[in-house]
Amino acid sequence: MTTWDSLYAKRASRMRASEIRELLKLLDRPDVISFAGGIPDPALFPAEAFKQAYAEILGGPEAERALQYGISEGSTRLREWIVAHMKDLGVSCGPENILVTSGSQQGLDYIGKLFLSEGDTALVQWPTYLGAVQAFNAYEINFDRLDPRANLAAADYQSRAAERGGAVKFAYLSPDFANPTGLSLDLEERRRILTLAGELSCAVIEDSPYQSLRYDGAPVPAMLALDCERNGGIENSRTLYCGSFSKSLSPGLRLGWICAASEVISRLVLIKQASDLNTPVLNQEAMARVAETKFEPHTAHTNAVYKARRDAMLDALAAHMPEGTNWTRPEGGMFIWLELPGGLDAAELLERSVETAKVAFVPGRAFHPDGSGANTLRLSFSCADKPKIDEGISRLGALIAETVTSTL
Amino acid sequence: MTTWDSLYAKRASRMRASEIRELLKLLDRPDVISFAGGIPDPALFPAEAFKQAYAEILGGPEAERALQYGISEGSTRLREWIVAHMKDLGVSCGPENILVTSGSQQGLDYIGKLFLSEGDTALVQWPTYLGAVQAFNAYEINFDRLDPRANLAAADYQSRAAERGGAVKFAYLSPDFANPTGLSLDLEERRRILTLAGELSCAVIEDSPYQSLRYDGAPVPAMLALDCERNGGIENSRTLYCGSFSKSLSPGLRLGWICAASEVISRLVLIKQASDLNTPVLNQEAMARVAETKFEPHTAHTNAVYKARRDAMLDALAAHMPEGTNWTRPEGGMFIWLELPGGLDAAELLERSVETAKVAFVPGRAFHPDGSGANTLRLSFSCADKPKIDEGISRLGALIAETVTSTL
Repeated sequence: MTTWDSLYAKRASRMRASEIRELLKLLDRPDVISFAGGIPDPALFPAEAFKQAYAEILGGPEAERALQYGISEGSTRLREWIVAHMKDLGVSCGPENILVTSGSQQGLDYIGKLFLSEGDTALVQWPTYLGAVQAFNAYEINFDRLDPRANLAAADYQSRAAERGGAVKFAYLSPDFANPTGLSLDLEERRRILTLAGELSCAVIEDSPYQSLRYDGAPVPAMLALDCERNGGIENSRTLYCGSFSKSLSPGLRLGWICAASEVISRLVLIKQASDLNTPVLNQEAMARVAETKFEPHTAHTNAVYKARRDAMLDALAAHMPEGTNWTRPEGGMFIWLELPGGLDAAELLERSVETAKVAFVPGRAFHPDGSGANTLRLSFSCADKPKIDEGISRLGALIAETVTSTL
Repeated sequence: MTTWDSLYAKRASRMRASEIRELLKLLDRPDVISFAGGIPDPALFPAEAFKQAYAEILGGPEAERALQYGISEGSTRLREWIVAHMKDLGVSCGPENILVTSGSQQGLDYIGKLFLSEGDTALVQWPTYLGAVQAFNAYEINFDRLDPRANLAAADYQSRAAERGGAVKFAYLSPDFANPTGLSLDLEERRRILTLAGELSCAVIEDSPYQSLRYDGAPVPAMLALDCERNGGIENSRTLYCGSFSKSLSPGLRLGWICAASEVISRLVLIKQASDLNTPVLNQEAMARVAETKFEPHTAHTNAVYKARRDAMLDALAAHMPEGTNWTRPEGGMFIWLELPGGLDAAELLERSVETAKVAFVPGRAFHPDGSGANTLRLSFSCADKPKIDEGISRLGALIAETVTSTL
């Protein structure tokens, strides 16, 4: 059997290993200070609360139901918590507007499956979340650049999409502390995207897994909340909000959600039925219990920890980076985005950095669907304490300064 | 926003609610004896063993890892158990041949995504597992009938597939106690399918979630085992085996697996990365612990219970069904398949049955991709005890006899 290639679907040629995941395997070395992985600090997980929740469910009358198949929409108790959470974000909705997904990544895959035919176009920011590009790419589509700070001409997007044999189906954005830049969209930018989507008659995908990780600055309303306000409620809204428990309570239970008009949710439920029947009821029931009692105190605690790490990294960057280096100053999330001076290539720098400075980061090109961004890189501050951050940024700054000098 | 329909992908028109799932909602009435749901009896779940496993993981040093993101391939400990299990089924393989999936339903979706381009053909039995048809249908393909008991002419399949604008990508079968018929393929039938697949140069999808639920008769080697034997090992085999914990230990953790050549597994891992990153590590670690100590004693216990229920249903059918009614005599699984006498329509019968006899079952048409099978129905014996089976089959037999008479 040596003919697998001839049996694969056409879309298989677009499926490539995530450069970042491959990279992370190489960087998992004890002698390297890593700012590479974009994951929460596991030391902060509320393990005891989860232990109690699982013991309560599996030791009580709910055990049979928790170990059985469940409904594709998601468990009622967890959806009720999500409904209340969305209300806190300014979105008035009911359980019929919520689909529980296996992490928000699954939400992105299902959204791709529902909206994207071959040749269609998705609008995304440059740089953007790599996982979204991978999820949408499987549906054999094109990407066009969405820059909330530039002029947005609907007719231009439409004609480019038509030239490529499809239509603009949605604008995908991560408006809060985005991976990889750490940046948020302000109110004006959010409104402009909604206006553009109206002109394009397309959907808006608001991917906000870092939403609760705000360390300072004033909260900005969710795009779905603005859309509801503008169009008279969620049933008339064009925005699908993707939420996640992965960055707040635990990524290990793989729990996220989509909040949108019930018509769209009912379609996504059919996709869920055909693709994995339901997300584990046991995990949903455990998460509901932990979220009900711990979400606010826990995120307050972890935000204090992450804020200190962000501050430590911003201070270290100011102290150690050579002139010509620029970076973002995010109000939350896990990432700082850095532009190298003198057109340095971040992938080349990483090779030297791991060998000599013993510091790891993620080169920025992978986040650009067009392969640009060679002089950018992503730093994550979520898993390193202040001494490691000081030491690592100091070494990285010295290496960058040295490299710039040697290439002059 | 009233234009959702115009935004959906072309494939969305193929996504319909499962008739069976909709039906099950209606049938969940306490006054109805239900033989409809094809699910394990929740009273048999090893809840205490799961409780201990979760407590051990979440109370110990593994908690942080169990609550973090994991690798897309699946947890090492669970894959090792699966490797040993596959060895018991005659398949020599390693962890590189295993992908852990969120139930075997997810395996079917991923297999569709990897192999099926629009217009391709999948060979399936008539009747077949409805969830497979739903999973594959999303990839906009055609179905052609595979009858392991008839002549299998590769050239005919090829020309029909070409006429429909694609190729035969795989033959999909459930060789052990299939849903919905309860029937198994014998050794000769398995070999003929493998030969046909060789002539077609296509893959074989062996979906065997009921494999461990054998109550009598001699085990037949897995098709993957026969394929390995014929072609010199798993790396040269064309068969993908889909396994599941849902019918043995618990469906609630949503854990299944695909076992195949490492080249295929590596492709499926990329699909997993882009679609939900990984199956929950916590659940995999809990399942590994329960499977290691409980799989054999637990399935021995549940098989004794299910065997008694199957026997009770076969006895009741023999006692109460009118002449001209035919049914299968499965050696395992959860289902008996029944053909009604006198061309009765099972969907019409169900309406009357729920109203008057207060007995529920699943009409057989939904399991036929061509809409045939109107005079067939599926009975599940997994969730009813002997008195309920006696009473329910007695009432159903009387209703069928009465209906046949009234239509003469």
